[in-house]
Amino acid sequence: MPDPGAGEVLVRNMWTSVDPALRLRLRERAPRGYFAAFALGEPMAGISTVGEVVASRAPGFAPGDVVRHGAGWCDYAVVRAGAESLGGIATLTRLDVDAAPPEAYLGALGASGLTAYAGLFHVAELREGDIVWVSAAAGSVGSLVAQLAKLRGHRVIGSAGSDEKVRYLLGTLGLDAAFNYKHGALSELLGAAAPDGIDVYFDNVGGDHLEAALGALRKRGRIAMCGSISEYDAPEPVPGPSNLFLVVANELTLRGFRGSSYVALLDEMVREVGGWLRGGRIRYEQTVVDGLENAPEALARLLRGDATGKMLVRIV
Amino acid sequence: MPDPGAGEVLVRNMWTSVDPALRLRLRERAPRGYFAAFALGEPMAGISTVGEVVASRAPGFAPGDVVRHGAGWCDYAVVRAGAESLGGIATLTRLDVDAAPPEAYLGALGASGLTAYAGLFHVAELREGDIVWVSAAAGSVGSLVAQLAKLRGHRVIGSAGSDEKVRYLLGTLGLDAAFNYKHGALSELLGAAAPDGIDVYFDNVGGDHLEAALGALRKRGRIAMCGSISEYDAPEPVPGPSNLFLVVANELTLRGFRGSSYVALLDEMVREVGGWLRGGRIRYEQTVVDGLENAPEALARLLRGDATGKMLVRIV
Repeated sequence: MPDPGAGEVLVRNMWTSVDPALRLRLRERAPRGYFAAFALGEPMAGISTVGEVVASRAPGFAPGDVVRHGAGWCDYAVVRAGAESLGGIATLTRLDVDAAPPEAYLGALGASGLTAYAGLFHVAELREGDIVWVSAAAGSVGSLVAQLAKLRGHRVIGSAGSDEKVRYLLGTLGLDAAFNYKHGALSELLGAAAPDGIDVYFDNVGGDHLEAALGALRKRGRIAMCGSISEYDAPEPVPGPSNLFLVVANELTLRGFRGSSYVALLDEMVREVGGWLRGGRIRYEQTVVDGLENAPEALARLLRGDATGKMLVRIV
Repeated sequence: MPDPGAGEVLVRNMWTSVDPALRLRLRERAPRGYFAAFALGEPMAGISTVGEVVASRAPGFAPGDVVRHGAGWCDYAVVRAGAESLGGIATLTRLDVDAAPPEAYLGALGASGLTAYAGLFHVAELREGDIVWVSAAAGSVGSLVAQLAKLRGHRVIGSAGSDEKVRYLLGTLGLDAAFNYKHGALSELLGAAAPDGIDVYFDNVGGDHLEAALGALRKRGRIAMCGSISEYDAPEPVPGPSNLFLVVANELTLRGFRGSSYVALLDEMVREVGGWLRGGRIRYEQTVVDGLENAPEALARLLRGDATGKMLVRIV
């Protein structure tokens, strides 16, 4: 175990995050502009993680503090205070564990919450009366997006890959419509759920979901492009939608984004979403896998669609 | 020849417009949200046209006035004053033929000018220092976009489909770089012309051009999606780019638009672009085909890439 140097803390990690997009870094090269690929033979570093400080030589951090950092999948980590990690989201931060349990800061009160909040309100520019479709709506980001839109009074359609998730979307989250995308042609399933079309599509899936959204978006509709889980594990690049001319015809806007670019909104999001969570107005599921040695399998499960809400690994 | 009714004028048409996107209306159904398909056995109506009023029962219009309207490919047309046509661009308007020749109001001072002006400044949100790539840059819209960006001091790369057009882009329009997209892999040609990447892509072509742009756009780059001539004549829907994840990774914005939505900018555009044209700071080519009976062949030529600047049909 290394000792922390000046300005560093030693953290015993408790929880770490499993995100679909980690798959993009398990390649020789990650997509241009994205976080770097993981190095072979090295720990999976650069992943949001929560732990307890066991030794500190950094002002403002003391043993016993629960912190978030970006050192990633390891039992212990030496972390330098102030060093930017994951665009600021996972820069060493002390967490308020009276307000929420530590692991919440990896999900609803962390990157997932920020991505949902910034994506819906700032990227998709949600406007009064918008009809919203969220894909992977039972997932960590999607379930928050769907509920934030419901809280603002919108008609919200969710899609997911199992009937159980669809029951969760309708029964627990109270969405206006939901469908299992495996049950037919997407354009028909979406058309039945949103017969008047949609104004906003929050894209977590890409591929055929994106194509169906283009087919349903009304004039000046918007897509917040958050991720494309359907393509991450594909052996070959997946062709894009063949109906892109509809972007011109209907003056659509497709905007890609990264939650990390909106870190300035993090405190505001934690206040608002944290309040709704405590008040029971937002529900949030977690799928917990025990043991760091099971983290790879947790990622594989997530990519197979075998998880609801946030996938977490409990390290200790 | 019908007589104009109350509020109508009879126009003898002089010039009409040939646009690549007319091809989209030569189908059983035009793309959802686009202008309607042309009806079989009917005149090609809903196309910007310029002519001379020969009889008027509309206040404010007198015989001898040169006007623009949207009645389309016909020798004479009865047009109702004030009836909106083509989103307002081709609503009956008297033209200032002292400031520019009549046919200019179908190109640089009409829909092409408005599309270029709105697309570059409002849709792509051109910012200081942006490196700009324009496809179909020897075309009616593209040549204006490229020159407007040059006038603002930007580095501008143009592409086209012949060496002669490339010489025009470099020699006459003074672009910083230009290439013939038929001379190799697009990503390599673009990479050589823009080794540091691009910030704005003005898309007139779609398909492989759009894919190459996604590969070259820097962080927060923007695409103004104006059209996709490469796909209009395709027998089957053309798959989209397989590198759409770069939209997420680099936080790109793709925005489709129609010039007709920016008709509020028409007067401003005519003033500015008209001034630059008269001052010789903007060059503008026209390809003229004589005789309305040759309009279909003019469209076919345009879709083959066999035209520089604006394709016009001289009716009389």
